[in-house]
Amino acid sequence: GAPGAPGPQQDPLFAFFSSVAGQDGQIDAEELQKCLTQANFTGTNKPFNLETCRLMIAMLDRDMSGTMGFNEFKELCNVINAWRGNFMSMDKDRSGTVDAPEMQQAITSMGFRLSPQAMNIIVKRYGLNGKIGFDDYMACCIRLRTLTDSFRKRDQAQQGTASFSYDDFIQCTMSS
Amino acid sequence: GAPGAPGPQQDPLFAFFSSVAGQDGQIDAEELQKCLTQANFTGTNKPFNLETCRLMIAMLDRDMSGTMGFNEFKELCNVINAWRGNFMSMDKDRSGTVDAPEMQQAITSMGFRLSPQAMNIIVKRYGLNGKIGFDDYMACCIRLRTLTDSFRKRDQAQQGTASFSYDDFIQCTMSS
Repeated sequence: GAPGAPGPQQDPLFAFFSSVAGQDGQIDAEELQKCLTQANFTGTNKPFNLETCRLMIAMLDRDMSGTMGFNEFKELCNVINAWRGNFMSMDKDRSGTVDAPEMQQAITSMGFRLSPQAMNIIVKRYGLNGKIGFDDYMACCIRLRTLTDSFRKRDQAQQGTASFSYDDFIQCTMSS
Repeated sequence: GAPGAPGPQQDPLFAFFSSVAGQDGQIDAEELQKCLTQANFTGTNKPFNLETCRLMIAMLDRDMSGTMGFNEFKELCNVINAWRGNFMSMDKDRSGTVDAPEMQQAITSMGFRLSPQAMNIIVKRYGLNGKIGFDDYMACCIRLRTLTDSFRKRDQAQQGTASFSYDDFIQCTMSS
């Protein structure tokens, strides 16, 4: 950190993080799930989706350890809070969920250009009875972003078409 | 069903199914999770991964309803039992989990030909502390199979390379 910046010991988040991280100073997907469930990030009494926790760790896990240290955790909290703000501005009735048209609008407003068929697949995949909770919304957005980035890297001429070898395709798709 | 075959009312599975399905006679991903957790399919006291439930419903959901009727549920029970047999034959110490080399061996024995790098990505993605539980094993196998099928359909010359438009890529990858 920069000189004079508060060290991890003074940061209020650190106490929360270290109570879950234990001695190794790292949290894995299950420990992150415990954190986010306790912090009631779902807004319901349901556990935060483990799948989303895995995607979030993979997203920020630059050393490919499968776990997350305190600095990555702090960065994640900022990301979650920003996304939670977006989500809550859509969730007008404060039900903790958004419906299919709201979800489609959110995806469009993030800049993704998708056919109605692709939208339907996504809303069906992430919804339960047509409603999408915050944790599933995050999982959906992270995967859409990761997959779109992978596609664009392979579509350098920007023709809207990309070629994959089988192994490359499996690596791109199974990692997210 | 064929004439003379027992109707749903006589099938012992039906009572179990209908106690969860309620009046609509259909179960969604959360109800399936409840079923499989109660039946202790994880072999631990943890809830069965909701993600796996969604993938299983999508796999058998021919009418694209997002839910599963009794006949699909019966078919699913057969699939799960077969996979559970495979899994338990790998899990020699009866811990309820398999380790990374066992998982890689299982993937190879199912006929998937993947690079060590792809294998590492998969094991890291589905493992927790290097161990893979039954529900994650199933999620991994279902996705590998679905994604491989999608790839092959687009690699009709069998050259090991496939082209995707952006929308098609997102449909293939976000649905699984």
